[in-house]
Parts: sequence; structure tokens; C-alpha cells
Amino acid sequence: MNSQSDIKYVIGVDYGTLSGRALLVRVSDGAEIASAVHEYSNGVMEDVLPATGKKLPPDWALQMPSDYLDVLKNTLPEVLRLSGINPNDVIGIATDFTACTVLPVTADGTPLNELPEFKNNPHAYIKLWKHHSAQRHADRINELAHIRNEKWISRYGGKISSEWEFAKALQLLEESPEVYNHMRYWIEAADWIIWQLCGNYVRNICTAGYKGIYQDGQYPSKDFLTALNPKFANFVTEKLEHTLGELGAKAGTLSKDAARWTGLPEGIAVAVGNVDAHVTAAAANAVNPGQMVAIMGTSTCHVMVSDQLAEVPGMCGVVPGGIVSGKLGYEAGQSGVGDLFGWFANNFASGEYQALAREAGVDIHTYLSNLASQSPIGSHGLVALDWHSGNRSTLVDHRLSSLIVGLTLATKPEEIYRAIVESTAFGARKIIKTFNDSGVPVKEFIAAGGLIKNKFVMQIYADVLNMPITVIRSTQGPALGSAIHAAVAAGAYKDVVQASAAMGGVEDEKFTPIPSNVNIYDQLFAHYDELYERFGHDGMMHDLRRIRDTALMVVGN
Amino acid sequence: MNSQSDIKYVIGVDYGTLSGRALLVRVSDGAEIASAVHEYSNGVMEDVLPATGKKLPPDWALQMPSDYLDVLKNTLPEVLRLSGINPNDVIGIATDFTACTVLPVTADGTPLNELPEFKNNPHAYIKLWKHHSAQRHADRINELAHIRNEKWISRYGGKISSEWEFAKALQLLEESPEVYNHMRYWIEAADWIIWQLCGNYVRNICTAGYKGIYQDGQYPSKDFLTALNPKFANFVTEKLEHTLGELGAKAGTLSKDAARWTGLPEGIAVAVGNVDAHVTAAAANAVNPGQMVAIMGTSTCHVMVSDQLAEVPGMCGVVPGGIVSGKLGYEAGQSGVGDLFGWFANNFASGEYQALAREAGVDIHTYLSNLASQSPIGSHGLVALDWHSGNRSTLVDHRLSSLIVGLTLATKPEEIYRAIVESTAFGARKIIKTFNDSGVPVKEFIAAGGLIKNKFVMQIYADVLNMPITVIRSTQGPALGSAIHAAVAAGAYKDVVQASAAMGGVEDEKFTPIPSNVNIYDQLFAHYDELYERFGHDGMMHDLRRIRDTALMVVGN
Repeated sequence: MNSQSDIKYVIGVDYGTLSGRALLVRVSDGAEIASAVHEYSNGVMEDVLPATGKKLPPDWALQMPSDYLDVLKNTLPEVLRLSGINPNDVIGIATDFTACTVLPVTADGTPLNELPEFKNNPHAYIKLWKHHSAQRHADRINELAHIRNEKWISRYGGKISSEWEFAKALQLLEESPEVYNHMRYWIEAADWIIWQLCGNYVRNICTAGYKGIYQDGQYPSKDFLTALNPKFANFVTEKLEHTLGELGAKAGTLSKDAARWTGLPEGIAVAVGNVDAHVTAAAANAVNPGQMVAIMGTSTCHVMVSDQLAEVPGMCGVVPGGIVSGKLGYEAGQSGVGDLFGWFANNFASGEYQALAREAGVDIHTYLSNLASQSPIGSHGLVALDWHSGNRSTLVDHRLSSLIVGLTLATKPEEIYRAIVESTAFGARKIIKTFNDSGVPVKEFIAAGGLIKNKFVMQIYADVLNMPITVIRSTQGPALGSAIHAAVAAGAYKDVVQASAAMGGVEDEKFTPIPSNVNIYDQLFAHYDELYERFGHDGMMHDLRRIRDTALMVVGN
Repeated sequence: MNSQSDIKYVIGVDYGTLSGRALLVRVSDGAEIASAVHEYSNGVMEDVLPATGKKLPPDWALQMPSDYLDVLKNTLPEVLRLSGINPNDVIGIATDFTACTVLPVTADGTPLNELPEFKNNPHAYIKLWKHHSAQRHADRINELAHIRNEKWISRYGGKISSEWEFAKALQLLEESPEVYNHMRYWIEAADWIIWQLCGNYVRNICTAGYKGIYQDGQYPSKDFLTALNPKFANFVTEKLEHTLGELGAKAGTLSKDAARWTGLPEGIAVAVGNVDAHVTAAAANAVNPGQMVAIMGTSTCHVMVSDQLAEVPGMCGVVPGGIVSGKLGYEAGQSGVGDLFGWFANNFASGEYQALAREAGVDIHTYLSNLASQSPIGSHGLVALDWHSGNRSTLVDHRLSSLIVGLTLATKPEEIYRAIVESTAFGARKIIKTFNDSGVPVKEFIAAGGLIKNKFVMQIYADVLNMPITVIRSTQGPALGSAIHAAVAAGAYKDVVQASAAMGGVEDEKFTPIPSNVNIYDQLFAHYDELYERFGHDGMMHDLRRIRDTALMVVGN
């Protein structure tokens, strides 16, 4: 077992919303040798906190740190076993995570929910990216930033998100000061997991920049924080700031402890933490200016490298080195994509449709897609917005909701399904248009993520965007992207660009726009755009949410 | 069998969209002795014409005249049999019909579809009220009427409907001149059926006024018709006008032929034809000014008697004697109500919900209503429009469609179901508001029709309208209303008001508005109203329909 071969391997671990996946990859060419998945036993805690059985407020979404460790303990031995390789031929490991997914920990990294005094307090748990109840706090941060003309706000398209570190921390301070005061670090799960592997806390430059408002070498000032809430004055110095690490750099080496429960050799390279979307650019070998990579799953994240610093309204952020070291990284996103399709298919396809799908031996998504594609484009007469989970870019507003226009008594489920798919493609078009209009042109569109398997969806995107769409070669993009970063951290390649060229890539086959479809989608997009601008700014959706929240509060009391 | 008793009876026959119903009623007090229903064997022909198997264009809806006769042949002997009375104690018969439901006939009343040379021509068949493909023709009529300042247009709220006699006739002329030229009369089914019973063609003042643009003793002028289309110049004189009859008057007596196939005595009174909604006011004994009767079924029709002549924007019409002889009759309507609930429940309730409803032993509507009523009002955060079949009043536009705002990933089917029910109540509120604002105050709201059985729906209406709602006593309102008209035609009462007081009425129990609910609905209605005004005028829904129709035409070719 101690003899080594010339063929070396790396492991990438991708932490998603519901499970974690490890992928063992050959360093020389990115060949995927073995993979294993582990589902979080607590999943997403959205309705009740298991420790107390108490109902959580609306828009909460928590996770459990032990679930993340279980991924390592289960999947790493499993990929070693499946591959049959000698563990000593593994030279590095890297991870990527959802973000901003963040938790309060003690000075030694212990999550506060693991302390007996806090286990019944929902604020002691991990707040998942889609925890959306800090919108009021985000609003205050944004308003104050504009009043004070804070330079950093324009780097985030004029708005920071309720999902990010500062909004969630302010919520924590004001709703649970005892947890806030007890914590030493407010830490990204992306960095916490690396700490568990190598024993070092290194803040990755990607989440520090995109989610932690680290710009031009500094965080928001003490003055700013004091104006938000005097008790928040020392948030950066006392809870947040820490050693930073570049993407692809080595955070440390695998600890003896971690080697024991993973089966990997002690001392191999552990890369700085990273984010699922951002590592995927490497896996698609799309790390050059103008190559937009869309990671299309339950939600979509768009990442793109550029040489130009520009202010793109309502993007998620621009961060130097945020995707590839030495270049500007842009990020944008859509809060809901695949989960919109799932919401509709699971709740609104009749029993008859479900039975017919079973009879045809296909899942309900395939059944609806097949039916929908039998009718000509535009024949549903529908246009929808894709804001079921709010708008992440360009409006950055999680209190927005969705709408659909054009319903008649002849409207069928497959038509609404199609309109929802189209709405997400229109949302992507709106983001690309915003980049183009801001002097950061999008020249290529490369798709990754679970939705690339759906040819119906991909062709709609090609037609709506009027751009050819290439598709990432790997079906496990983020895990491969992490593996590429592990290879760089282990010194097998000079940098991520070189490693991506060797280990990443796209399929030969493209989805090509069909001109007659493009024409009809141009007409429908004009209506989408009008609805977007109207309902994005007129306050109706905010007021409907206020009515909803008031109604629910009355009952809660 | 020839001996008569002192107790006399009348029969009312109600022609609905899918079936006809006969009701045998005691003249003295309106007691309902027996009823029978017959479903049209051809139903509504919307997809294909059975005679040819050819697809019908979008928005077509046809019926078959023989189905109407079958109702008489089946239900009249059946009510006689069920009641056990002596047929000689029946003193009169009356009918009511959907409107505007209209057909081309020869001079002797033969429907053109029964002539061999026309049986394959869809234009030779009855055009049902919900045949909506004459919108372009209605648009031209409306535009020209405003250009020429035709006095009659304001009696119809500024717009005549694509459903009515002139729009459908102009469509017939221009799309099938051979049928147009061959027909002698363009006749309401309401009058055609009376012709079959008594051998006389009498045009009832109700449809002549509401659907036939008969105002102040005349129809639209020859000049007007010529300007529409020179070939339409003599439409009124050659195809339309005929002897008029007041509501409750006798059109004639039962013919020997009709006596044979109905089992009723020859020579009994046959009342002038009437319309389902309008006769219901009599059945509810709501024939005084300010009493609005809403006949709530697949669609809703609002009728109200008044002493004041006013111009209510977008109402269906004001006609002297149109509901009760000697008073002004106002009509308004909502194109889709119960059929919206059915559309949603049948197509968009998941298989799981359908199974749970079956398990609970309730229909899907009850199941959805029960679930919806467990959550507080407004907690769905939704507002919808009720325009799935267009808007009949106050916008009079069948190219409008529906929308729903406020959807999130947490939105459940019962919440959308509730929002759709609420949207129809908001639609009723908008109509009432329009009447009130125009100097024709609505003082009472009396509900009739199939939906009154649904307490969930009725309470929502009371809360949304902020008015107590009384409910018609009879479960067979239109048929009872017709029976009341039969009693008047037979001379048993002086007039419809007197007969209604004796034979009609409402339930003692009322639905009363709950102030806290009213408050929330006021807030939601404000959003409904904003959507209504915006999408009613901004052209988006028209353009979505244009895109739809273009897409379907491309495929049709």
C-alpha cells in the first residue's frame, strides 16, 4: 500500500444544498475515476428546528455542521475504495461550497449549535445561502451605504444581498445577541470545512470578496458599522477578518485527524476554500475574458472573468481574483431556476398527467417537456417572471415574487411549465444584456449544472439568448473544478488557467439558435422586460408580501 | 285524465350551456313539484364539427338545434310522469335560454345546418353565447359607432360585445356569404324554441334590447350598416327585425304538434322567450330598484331593475322592459367564474391532492376550499385577475386574459384556488362600484346559480363586497323564473312583480361581512384594481394573443 505509481490523483469535494459529492480525478488529464455522494441527514431545515420541534419563521433555511463532516467521512473512503488506487497517489484535496452559507463558531472552530447552551437557539445553526429573512437588514445596509456614498456598494451593482455575511450577521446581532456575543468567528462554511481538514482557518478571497464586502484591501469601516448599530461597530475586527488565501493556493496540509477519518495520506495539500459556481469555470476551461459560465441547477449562478473593471447594475459583485487569481471575477445569479420547474411539476401537474408520465415510463419533467415541445413557440400566449425566490440580479430584491400573464381557460399545465422555463431564460438574457450594456461584453455562454441534461431547456436558452450554447464536458463540474484547484495547490500545475486547459473542457456538440424561434422570443422578451421593469419597481409585490406576513403574524400570535 | 282539479301548474324550461331542465311548479305558491334534466348529446362543439370531423378555429363554440328539441321531448313527459298530476292542470309553459345564442333559419324556422347543402358548413350551426371569434367584427362596430356618435352605443356602456347579434352576423356575412344570403332570419335560440312550441315567431324584448341593439324603437340605421359593409346594409330589414313581445306576455298557444311530443294540452299559454339570468330576478323576488341579482355559475350575470336611465361604463346594457315590463333593466356580467375554479381544480391540482380528496370522500373543489379556508385571509400573498375568458363588463374585451401575481416556491394549489375565487369576487366588486359611481346604486346583493351551494365562495363574496348576501330559495332559479313568466302569460297573475312575490323568494339565512376580513380584502382589492386598469388598457394581453394566434396559424397552414 505504500508503494506509489507515477500516476497522481486529486480529490474535489462539492458541497451542494442537499448533499456532498467527492470526485477522484487523474491529475494529468482530468479523467474522472470515481465519485461518491452523501446526502445530509438533516437536509435543509426550513419548517422546524429538530432540536426543539419549534416552527421556524418564514424565509429561514438552516443546516447542520455535522452533516458536512459526514460527507468527508463517507465519500472519501468510498472513492478510494471504488477507484482501487493506492491512496498514497492522491496528492491534494479541495472543496467547494454553496455561498453565502455561514455559521457562528468559537475560537477553535466549534459551531455554536454544538454547545449545550445554544442547541435550542436557531441562530446558533448554519444559515444556508437561501436563508432569506435578513432582507430588512440588507435594506438598511444598502440605504446607509448610498447615503454615505460608500465606494464598495457600486462593486455589488448598488445592492448587497440579504444572503450575505453582513446582512445575516446584523440579523444575528439584533435577534440573538447572546449567540452574536459568544461567537469568535462568523465564518463561511466554505472555510470552516477547510479548517476541519487542515487545522488552519484561511478566509478564501472569493467569498471574502463576493459575500464579505472585502474590496480594495478593506472591509466596511467602523464608522459605517456604528451607524448601522453601535453594537455592530467591531464586527469586522472582532468577528470577521482573518488571514486571506488566494484561490488555488494551499491552505495547509491534511491533518493527522482528518487523515484518519478520510483514509487519505496525512500531509497532502489542502487548497483554500472555494465556491461551487466559481470552481466550475475551471472545470469548463472557461477562464478567459467574455466567457460566461452559467451553473444551472435549482438556481443559476453566472461567473465570468474579465480584464475590465466596470459597474454593472445589480450584479452580485466584482472581485479581483474572485474566480481566477490575477483577473477580475464577475458574478451574477438567478435565485430560482430548476426549483421553479420542480415547484410547478410537483404541485400543479394533475394526477392524470402523473399517471400518463408513469405509463410512458418518463419522469414528470420529461413528460411536460415533451408535451410542451409539440406546440409552436408562442402558442401558449403566456409570459412569466422568474422571481418565485425573488431576484438576485439585476434588482437584488428577495421580496419580489412571480407572476404569469396570459392565462385562459385553454391554458394547459405543459404550457405554464414551458412559460416558466422560458422565464428563466429571459432572466438570463436580462443579465447578459446588463453586462453588455455596462461595457463587460459576454462573448460566449457555457452551461454547466444539472439542467444541461435537459435538451428542451438548453434549446430554449439558445433561442432566447440568440447565442450558441456550449455545455461543460463533465457531469460533475464543481467537483472537477475543485479537483483542478487541488492539483494547483499540490503544485502539479503553475496556475488554474494551465490546470483548466489540461483537466477541464466542454462538449463538442452545441445548441444553436434557430432564427424563427429567436424572432418570436424577441417579441415575448419585450413583454418580459416590461413586466420586469414595472413590477421590479412599483412596490406591488412588496405590499403583497407585507399583507402575507401580517396575516401570518396575526395567526402566529 | 280529462278531469281537472283546482290546483293549477305551470312549467318552466331552462336552457343552459350543457343541458336543459324542466320544472313543474304550483301556480299558487311556487312550490316545485317535479323536475327533469336532459343533457345535449352534442354538448358544446368547440374543437371539431362532427359532420365533417374538421377542426374549428380558436374561440368557436357551436350547438345543435335538435339538442334543444330533445330537451322538450324528454323532460316534459318526464316531469308530468314524476309529478303524477293531471296534465290538463298545466296552464302554461315558458322557457329561458343562454344569450346571445343565435342561429340562421329559413322562413319557416328550419335551421340552416339541417339543409343538406349546409350541413358541412360550421357557420350554418348555432353560435353559442361563448363563441368569441367575432371580436374583430365587434371592434369595427364599436369604432364606427363612436366615430358616428351613434346614440345607442352609450346604452351598452360604450361597447357592444363580440357575443351579440350584430357582431356574429357581420362575421357570418363576411366569412360565409352563402349561409348569410340563404338565411331568412338571424334568430335568438330563446325565440326559436318558442316558435317550435307555438308556431309563432315573436322576438322577445329582452334579447332584442340587450343583444340586438334595439333602443328607442329602432335598430342601428341602414347608413350605419352600409358603412360597416355595403352588403350588410339591409341586415335589419331583411334578416333581423320582427314582431316584438314583452316579457311575461303570451307568444301564442301550444301547437297540436308540440302537444303531441310533450304530453301537454294543446292550446295552453306559451310565454314570450326569455334569458336565463333575467328570469332569475323573478325567482328571487328581486324585481325592485337597487336589488342586484347575480346568477353565479360557470359565468356570472348581474341583472338589476331601476327607475333611473344612466350610462354605466362598460355594462352589458340598459333596456326598457328588459327584466320587468315597465322598468329599466340593467345587465352586467363576468365571462368566467365557476369555470375558472373548474379549470384550475381539474388541471392543476396534483394527483396527491386528488387522492386525498377521494380519501376524504369529497370532490376536489371541496377539498381545495377546505384547505384554503384553514389559512388566514391574505396569507397567500396573491392577487389574480378573473379574465381567463376575457372581460364582459366593464372593459368589454374578450382578448384580455388573466394573470396572477405574488407566486413563490411556497405557493400551494389551494392558495391559487382561493386567489382565483377572490378574483371573481373582486370582479363583482368592480362592477358594483361602477354602477354606484354612475348613479345607479346597488343596495342589495342577491345570489343565485350553482355557486350558492359553496359557503366558502359566498363568505368570500360577502367579505370582498362588504355587503350582506342573501341567497335565492330555489335551487332551480331560472326554471322557476320561467315558470313565473308562464303563470303571468297564462293570466294567473296581473304581472311579473305580483307573480314573483307569490312564487319567488330568498333564504332566511344571510352571509354577513366580517369586518377584519373586509379590511384585508380592501387592501387586496386596491391591487386588483391597479392590475385591472393597467392590463385592461396597456395592450400587453392583446399582443400576447396576437403572438399566440400567429403561432397557431403558422402551424395550421
